[in-house]
Amino acid sequence: MAKFKLTREYVDGIRDKIELKEENSILDNLSELHPADIAELFRELDLEEAKYLYLLADDETAADVITELEEDERKRFLDSLPSEVIAKRFIDKMESDDAADVLGEMDDDRQQEVLSHMDDIKSAGDIADLLSYDEDTAGGLMAKEFIKVKESWNLTTCLRSMRRQGEEMDEVYYVYVVDNDGILKGTLSLKRLLLSPIHKTVKDIYNDDLISVRTDVPAEEVSAIMEKYDLVALPVIDSINRLVGRITIDDVVDFIREEAEKDYQLASGITDDVETSDRVWVHTRARMPWLIIGMIGGVLSSRVVSGFVNLMETHPELSFFMGLIAAMGGNIGMQSSAIIVQSLASGSMGLDTTWGKLFKELGIAFINATILSAIILGYNLIIGENLALTYTVSIALFSVVVFASLFGTFIPLLMKRMNIDPAVATGPFVTTLNDIIGMFLYLTIATICYNILI
Amino acid sequence: MAKFKLTREYVDGIRDKIELKEENSILDNLSELHPADIAELFRELDLEEAKYLYLLADDETAADVITELEEDERKRFLDSLPSEVIAKRFIDKMESDDAADVLGEMDDDRQQEVLSHMDDIKSAGDIADLLSYDEDTAGGLMAKEFIKVKESWNLTTCLRSMRRQGEEMDEVYYVYVVDNDGILKGTLSLKRLLLSPIHKTVKDIYNDDLISVRTDVPAEEVSAIMEKYDLVALPVIDSINRLVGRITIDDVVDFIREEAEKDYQLASGITDDVETSDRVWVHTRARMPWLIIGMIGGVLSSRVVSGFVNLMETHPELSFFMGLIAAMGGNIGMQSSAIIVQSLASGSMGLDTTWGKLFKELGIAFINATILSAIILGYNLIIGENLALTYTVSIALFSVVVFASLFGTFIPLLMKRMNIDPAVATGPFVTTLNDIIGMFLYLTIATICYNILI
Repeated sequence: MAKFKLTREYVDGIRDKIELKEENSILDNLSELHPADIAELFRELDLEEAKYLYLLADDETAADVITELEEDERKRFLDSLPSEVIAKRFIDKMESDDAADVLGEMDDDRQQEVLSHMDDIKSAGDIADLLSYDEDTAGGLMAKEFIKVKESWNLTTCLRSMRRQGEEMDEVYYVYVVDNDGILKGTLSLKRLLLSPIHKTVKDIYNDDLISVRTDVPAEEVSAIMEKYDLVALPVIDSINRLVGRITIDDVVDFIREEAEKDYQLASGITDDVETSDRVWVHTRARMPWLIIGMIGGVLSSRVVSGFVNLMETHPELSFFMGLIAAMGGNIGMQSSAIIVQSLASGSMGLDTTWGKLFKELGIAFINATILSAIILGYNLIIGENLALTYTVSIALFSVVVFASLFGTFIPLLMKRMNIDPAVATGPFVTTLNDIIGMFLYLTIATICYNILI
Repeated sequence: MAKFKLTREYVDGIRDKIELKEENSILDNLSELHPADIAELFRELDLEEAKYLYLLADDETAADVITELEEDERKRFLDSLPSEVIAKRFIDKMESDDAADVLGEMDDDRQQEVLSHMDDIKSAGDIADLLSYDEDTAGGLMAKEFIKVKESWNLTTCLRSMRRQGEEMDEVYYVYVVDNDGILKGTLSLKRLLLSPIHKTVKDIYNDDLISVRTDVPAEEVSAIMEKYDLVALPVIDSINRLVGRITIDDVVDFIREEAEKDYQLASGITDDVETSDRVWVHTRARMPWLIIGMIGGVLSSRVVSGFVNLMETHPELSFFMGLIAAMGGNIGMQSSAIIVQSLASGSMGLDTTWGKLFKELGIAFINATILSAIILGYNLIIGENLALTYTVSIALFSVVVFASLFGTFIPLLMKRMNIDPAVATGPFVTTLNDIIGMFLYLTIATICYNILI
């Protein structure tokens, strides 16, 4: 199978074929596509067209496509189908973690209904178990499909059992070794198995040097562990160390991207995960909260400025640099908080204390502030602004830079302490507060400078 | 091995032991740690202490730790060692892709020197090959360690050959199938191998439904493919489809995070990948460029405002809302461009044309603009600002929101067209330009309103 690039032409072609009910030619098309590609194709079709394709596709493919769809698309589609079809055509064919994710998006009654229609009672039970875990924990990420062997077995028994267990699985990366009570002891790498003489027992060759997580470990920690230790699969254990599931890297890769994107979106003042393809009102809903906060900040800063109305009246030239002061405060705040938020997210904070970090940031701030206010000082002297304004702008810029840096560093750390997502602290929030305080500093310093110099 | 959390106490403990040269007790500590943990520990030690640990650690561990270090730490450390030690103690023990990455950070002469000191000529050759590829391509990401079998072999021959090939490798996830000319035909999953009777030939059981990439495919595309198709390993082929290497997911996971973080940092106005642990001047260097741009923008907006000095003199109250107009323009611009940049990055743009997106963004913009200007209109009427100011602010806010949205959407798309990283378009750049145009719109609209109403 080659890589596939969805084009407008391709989509139109499929739509025509659906129009004309050219089943065979459509089946040829689908057979060439990976489920992930079909999912992309579906995004471009309307509900009826999509349904038509589903009825044609074989169960395996149909189930895989369902798991590849975006949540809202999947919901729209499944809501239009009876529980029995969902159970028998889709859920029965999915890996337990995907099945649990899909069911997790339905309300409880629907979940029960679907589960009750499943043919494979054992996997229905597995899915029900998985549904009981919070989706942002190891238990919520894990799947029940894994191969486990007893440490006491010899490799012949081991291989026979693995063959039997392996039949119902997509792919096998690790084989887990447990004792008679099901307590996780280690892993049996397929490579070791290939390289070892058949008369040995599992105990002789398994690797007990393994990393595992409890079901209640947060997803962030799971992804951090798998990323740090370059793990492809991570076994999940219950409170008494019995093996209950495994998490594979592909689920975590999606999580890592989503997390990184979420921080960026929050920093940009977007509260939900929105994509260009989402409907207009979804965008408005996601963007309005921050905009309102920005407005409130703007209104407050207007109150601050109005407190200096007499000064503004006698020295209108002060308004020239209001934009600059506000913008720089915002930019600096963004920079400082972004660095902290990312370091927190990627766990690369090192061991400095909060005070250590603030002190360091203070150093950076002083350097930046000196450079920037020197530049603006030179500029104003050259173009010959009056001295009061010249000094006001430079001193104000200096103080705004220093203040915004500390503020942008401190707030995320504080939020972290309070167990609030620090990403929320960046973007409009920091920017807005810096605007207000920037205006206040600017006009206060102006009052002083103008009193001294004029 | 349990998960490990580095603490200040632990680091101090190690330092004391190094001080007192308690070799055995240090070795006990190291043996409990994963190389990734030791790398974290190293970050907290000074060069001499780190060297002391290296001399104690066994070659395997030492090599793994080297690959886990941050680039700058690794450089600092390796620069202090003779080429022969680097070759024999580290490079010889690394997988070819890690070795190539490490050597890639050295200048050419040093590279040659190190390679010339390697004992294993074959792997020296592999590394030299890898060094010839651009590091941001599939060739630069791939490793030479993989197991390949001929489609004509029977499974007994196949297993024997796999055992031999497998000995020098960390872990085996896929076995690649080639024909007699070394052309990649497909994969042989270890699971299939486990489940198949021994008398079959590779041809009977291998899976020809496979995705591969050419050596010159960009890293972005590689990670997109592996993420989309949930691949653990991806074979790399040359221009005539011969298998030349494989890329594993763990290398790509790091890449995905780095990419996502890079977009966020660029959006926050940070040009290099900086971490809190980096030295002060690194931070300044990474942050100054954007700040300068912000300054220039601020200066330009000061020119714009000064063009309206008479208006400001007669109506100082106009200065009250300058901060609000500037801030909102900035926020809106950030939001719009962040959404586009992320959609571009995650390839979730769908099939809308540029015009389609701009048109849609226009819709969103009008809704937001209406809501926001209505709010501020209400506010100003309530607090009883003069009507001219009241209308000026609302109309200006409306136009700024609409303009900033279109601008924030269009610029990234334009940059993409011009093959410039769209992430560069967000943050201070968009914000600054929006500030300037915001000021101009605000004061122009003010001139009109005040002429009409006063």
